[in-house]
Amino acid sequence: MMIVMKDGAGEDQITEVIEKLRSVGAEAHLSRGQFKTIIGAIGDREKIFEIPFAAMPGVEEVIPIMKPYKLVSREFHPEGTVVNVGGVRLGEDQFVVIAGPCAVESESQMLAAAKAAKEAGAHMLRGGAFKPRSSPYSFQGLGEEGLRLLDRARDITGLPIVTEVVDVRHVVMVSNYADMLQIGARNMQNFLLLREVGMQSKPVMLKRGLSSTLEELLMAAEYIVRGGNKNVVLCERGIRTFETATRNTLDLSAVPLVKKYSHLPIIVDPSHATGKREAIPALSRGALAVGADGVMIEIHPDPQAALCDGPQSLGLEEFRTLMDELRAVAPPLGRTL
Amino acid sequence: MMIVMKDGAGEDQITEVIEKLRSVGAEAHLSRGQFKTIIGAIGDREKIFEIPFAAMPGVEEVIPIMKPYKLVSREFHPEGTVVNVGGVRLGEDQFVVIAGPCAVESESQMLAAAKAAKEAGAHMLRGGAFKPRSSPYSFQGLGEEGLRLLDRARDITGLPIVTEVVDVRHVVMVSNYADMLQIGARNMQNFLLLREVGMQSKPVMLKRGLSSTLEELLMAAEYIVRGGNKNVVLCERGIRTFETATRNTLDLSAVPLVKKYSHLPIIVDPSHATGKREAIPALSRGALAVGADGVMIEIHPDPQAALCDGPQSLGLEEFRTLMDELRAVAPPLGRTL
Amino acid sequence: MMIVMKDGAGEDQITEVIEKLRSVGAEAHLSRGQFKTIIGAIGDREKIFEIPFAAMPGVEEVIPIMKPYKLVSREFHPEGTVVNVGGVRLGEDQFVVIAGPCAVESESQMLAAAKAAKEAGAHMLRGGAFKPRSSPYSFQGLGEEGLRLLDRARDITGLPIVTEVVDVRHVVMVSNYADMLQIGARNMQNFLLLREVGMQSKPVMLKRGLSSTLEELLMAAEYIVRGGNKNVVLCERGIRTFETATRNTLDLSAVPLVKKYSHLPIIVDPSHATGKREAIPALSRGALAVGADGVMIEIHPDPQAALCDGPQSLGLEEFRTLMDELRAVAPPLGRTL
Amino acid sequence: MMIVMKDGAGEDQITEVIEKLRSVGAEAHLSRGQFKTIIGAIGDREKIFEIPFAAMPGVEEVIPIMKPYKLVSREFHPEGTVVNVGGVRLGEDQFVVIAGPCAVESESQMLAAAKAAKEAGAHMLRGGAFKPRSSPYSFQGLGEEGLRLLDRARDITGLPIVTEVVDVRHVVMVSNYADMLQIGARNMQNFLLLREVGMQSKPVMLKRGLSSTLEELLMAAEYIVRGGNKNVVLCERGIRTFETATRNTLDLSAVPLVKKYSHLPIIVDPSHATGKREAIPALSRGALAVGADGVMIEIHPDPQAALCDGPQSLGLEEFRTLMDELRAVAPPLGRTL
Repeated sequence: MMIVMKDGAGEDQITEVIEKLRSVGAEAHLSRGQFKTIIGAIGDREKIFEIPFAAMPGVEEVIPIMKPYKLVSREFHPEGTVVNVGGVRLGEDQFVVIAGPCAVESESQMLAAAKAAKEAGAHMLRGGAFKPRSSPYSFQGLGEEGLRLLDRARDITGLPIVTEVVDVRHVVMVSNYADMLQIGARNMQNFLLLREVGMQSKPVMLKRGLSSTLEELLMAAEYIVRGGNKNVVLCERGIRTFETATRNTLDLSAVPLVKKYSHLPIIVDPSHATGKREAIPALSRGALAVGADGVMIEIHPDPQAALCDGPQSLGLEEFRTLMDELRAVAPPLGRTL
Repeated sequence: MMIVMKDGAGEDQITEVIEKLRSVGAEAHLSRGQFKTIIGAIGDREKIFEIPFAAMPGVEEVIPIMKPYKLVSREFHPEGTVVNVGGVRLGEDQFVVIAGPCAVESESQMLAAAKAAKEAGAHMLRGGAFKPRSSPYSFQGLGEEGLRLLDRARDITGLPIVTEVVDVRHVVMVSNYADMLQIGARNMQNFLLLREVGMQSKPVMLKRGLSSTLEELLMAAEYIVRGGNKNVVLCERGIRTFETATRNTLDLSAVPLVKKYSHLPIIVDPSHATGKREAIPALSRGALAVGADGVMIEIHPDPQAALCDGPQSLGLEEFRTLMDELRAVAPPLGRTL
Repeated sequence: MMIVMKDGAGEDQITEVIEKLRSVGAEAHLSRGQFKTIIGAIGDREKIFEIPFAAMPGVEEVIPIMKPYKLVSREFHPEGTVVNVGGVRLGEDQFVVIAGPCAVESESQMLAAAKAAKEAGAHMLRGGAFKPRSSPYSFQGLGEEGLRLLDRARDITGLPIVTEVVDVRHVVMVSNYADMLQIGARNMQNFLLLREVGMQSKPVMLKRGLSSTLEELLMAAEYIVRGGNKNVVLCERGIRTFETATRNTLDLSAVPLVKKYSHLPIIVDPSHATGKREAIPALSRGALAVGADGVMIEIHPDPQAALCDGPQSLGLEEFRTLMDELRAVAPPLGRTL
Repeated sequence: MMIVMKDGAGEDQITEVIEKLRSVGAEAHLSRGQFKTIIGAIGDREKIFEIPFAAMPGVEEVIPIMKPYKLVSREFHPEGTVVNVGGVRLGEDQFVVIAGPCAVESESQMLAAAKAAKEAGAHMLRGGAFKPRSSPYSFQGLGEEGLRLLDRARDITGLPIVTEVVDVRHVVMVSNYADMLQIGARNMQNFLLLREVGMQSKPVMLKRGLSSTLEELLMAAEYIVRGGNKNVVLCERGIRTFETATRNTLDLSAVPLVKKYSHLPIIVDPSHATGKREAIPALSRGALAVGADGVMIEIHPDPQAALCDGPQSLGLEEFRTLMDELRAVAPPLGRTL
């Protein structure tokens, strides 16, 4: 950590900072320039971070040098983590395709989507039983009945299931059904929920918040891993920007950067990122090309009748076509499908 | 709602939209331009909203005309709502100042801040007992012990208390202590929490999310009011933008616009918005001048020792000076302090 | 265009809107809902747009239905445009790679980069002679001497050249040297410059502004095409968001959407978008996979000595490796390199 | 400047950085932590900045400590600058109100607005003769004829005039008419134009770009001052964010921060910031309360007939009311009107 002193900072103020550092066993390296004095702090990072230097008199700015996360960092764990979700391995050569409806609506809808996903070659199923919706007047999901339908879809297809948990009181219940728990974008900084999913044993897919930096995404993952659960899969799903042509702006740069900073697998959700069906095939190919470990795609047997997010769902035939494209592009990228 | 058809949309597709509208008892008004056909939907708004027009073939775009919220809208309830928090009335002539530390840290810290707040003329106290923090390694609050200290501060000063609730399992417990429950920015779209606070009787202060539009803020308030709790106070606390000179960008335009669209009171939190102590007096005056019903300001008896957000806390003397300024500016703005 | 009237709009106000529309020969379609009256305007779009409905009493909102651009729209010109730049065709099967240094610094630097680009298989050269820089103290480019060095690089390699023009007084001079004129992101809405390049005959590469929507990008292109120059190539180069891990956020969704809305070719500049060398190969592959017509990549014989943007420049060996990767991935995407 | 080395940076790489620093006469201060080595650079700032450290092998990050601007900084020039525009002094006690139409449309419109501005107590007139417009089909201004009408409005009212210059070829011509030249938001980083206005003698009002940080705004001002023109007035006019309820998000925090970092006066333009007439009085009062040196407000004798930005123009009566409000609020804020 570098502590930058104000222009006219007094010697006593500089001394106070140095003594604070020494009080936690850290060293202080002093650099005096023509205008600014800078104090480098070297020592136990967590102890140093606890001292509120930024509020001390004479201090202009505190610049952290080390990343604030540790357990999820690649420096700490150089090898990439592989997360096993009911036999499907995320973080290896396979480019994992997760498909299914936004919301589980009915048995016939869920099973039709599941069978089509399986036939087209998807590796995992998705489907929301609990739906966080901006409006209290929108369909909020089938609840536990939706989980039972997902269970049935797994029985029939053999594909593992990922589904969102939104309520700390439901974590145990949802993890009884799901092969992987999803933390949605709006809950990325619901720290209580992060802690709860960190204390159970099913893998967790953590979606990036609408206005979260990559550093915040990794800090959120740190909450889960610190709770004891190492099986975290990150998911880029678009960030909020001024652009209105898409619902959010998919940040594919996140993929190579997360791979650099962290050992966790990362997948991409082009459906929520764009909200536009016609952009999904292109961005799914893009996700594969930038090095993502998979994609999560919304499909629906009848998008125009979907209770949720129909405009961003691929029809089953469109999904089959996309799978064929991905299969063709994967090999030169060193991926299998 | 206006349904815009694609350029080449067929007659059957137009008919299908019209029939869907009629199936829920709505009327369809057809406008055929040279390039576009547009169908206006008139009828029961909630029924119309349930139909996924945007996913129907031939439909290019669906443009909602009505606001998606109702109970919180000024159209529905033209008079401004006044929220009574332990005798302090938000939404009337009084410009309400809420002051206190970011986090309750200890008895001596909380009581020193509370007494200074009272002496300087603040109307309400704040203090966090449960702190959502980006890092799992940061101080997370004293929990229920913090609530007891807040209770003691209220006993001594007579000022009502607002404190944040983050856990759906704590709503009853926190509302036993607090005069107003705060929903923090990160929980603005934690719909379960919104529902829970909507079902208890204490007033709720709802902070705008970091990347939430005003419409989403009002939709979140709609969740609470729909649950039965009409006493909601909104709080503008800065949004996330590209600018890095401040922690967030305080959006003071939100105040006149919320006043136009909604009957709920709105206050401003300049401390979290800027993260910079030196900007807080100016923006507090600004909040008063644009018509906010109050401000919430972080103060600390010893900002440089604060366990949380010291750089954005005013010292007690600075706070007194600010109160004097606000008192001088209020009368020509038609406000009392 | 739909004109939405305020809730309490009077009959006289509705009549006034209708009469304004009739005064320019347009039809008015009236839809009266329970709360809102909406007037659809049908007729000559440009005449209708000239009437300031939004400022008329009783009008709440004006919603344009038609896109505001015409000449660059795919509706107007369904076939994709192919832009021929000195024999290289942008907008066909070939994925066009443009490479070169950010700034032309010296003969040896430019020629080394140019030869390496040629050998690795690039199709076009780039290099800045006039550099817009945030700081007046930064290197501003070699000026016309830089153009002469580009000319020499073209002579030696046979590759056409793209270079930026920043000054309306230089358009003729720069177009004497360049095969394609580049309009930089900061000048995307420099409408005078757009008009000037629209009146000369060389193709123009128009970069998206840092905070420009796709609609504004297409409107800027409309300025150029309307001036008589149909040979416009768009360039996505990242937008400004809250994320600080990359310099800008590359918006690859722009590619499929621009292809949908417009007939103009679009390429991607991952170098400026990220400012991070290590992300460039991944995003170049991503650009190819989402359907871009090419990429523009900064290379430098000695990035650590670059006078401008060294950290985002690929070394010549890294560039060769990237070209090999792109060549491998192109065929299954239906592209040649 | 602090140069942070990568985790595994070799001794030779560290040595290379140190030698580069010494080659320009600078000192290097070495801090070796457990994971990171950091090199502090002390010496001639401009020489140090010219070295592309960020591109050197082993370097992870370069962190500038000093602000990149100098002439406009308060450190360099502690006293506030007062800019005299035709006798009106910006940067002193007077809160300066500039009023007028968005665009000069006709003699009757301009003179009606000017007289009303004068009568209501405005101190300066505005009016655009050259209008940068997103669409080539929109009204682009009257050109020099507009300047002549502004000149006439000044003759009649005695109020000085500010008007925008967009073309480097027009700087001399426009400065023959104007008392202050305006650089619009879209031209904030049109460095050629900044240089030209820096070389003439009339004061310059520099508007913040839609996506410009405060640091970039001050760097743009540095271009002008460095050219020899010290009379620069900054203008906050809203930045582009995700919020769509207003055209832009007015960043009133910019005022206290600019006052801290720079000695230049700063005013606020609430008309362009919000695009909504109903928010303008509140935000004008807010500008006064946060410490701005003035506001620039669009007024129109007949907003519903305005050729440009009618919905954000105040009618003349609304403007008079606003002036009365400002006059009442100014004294307790230490301002005169």
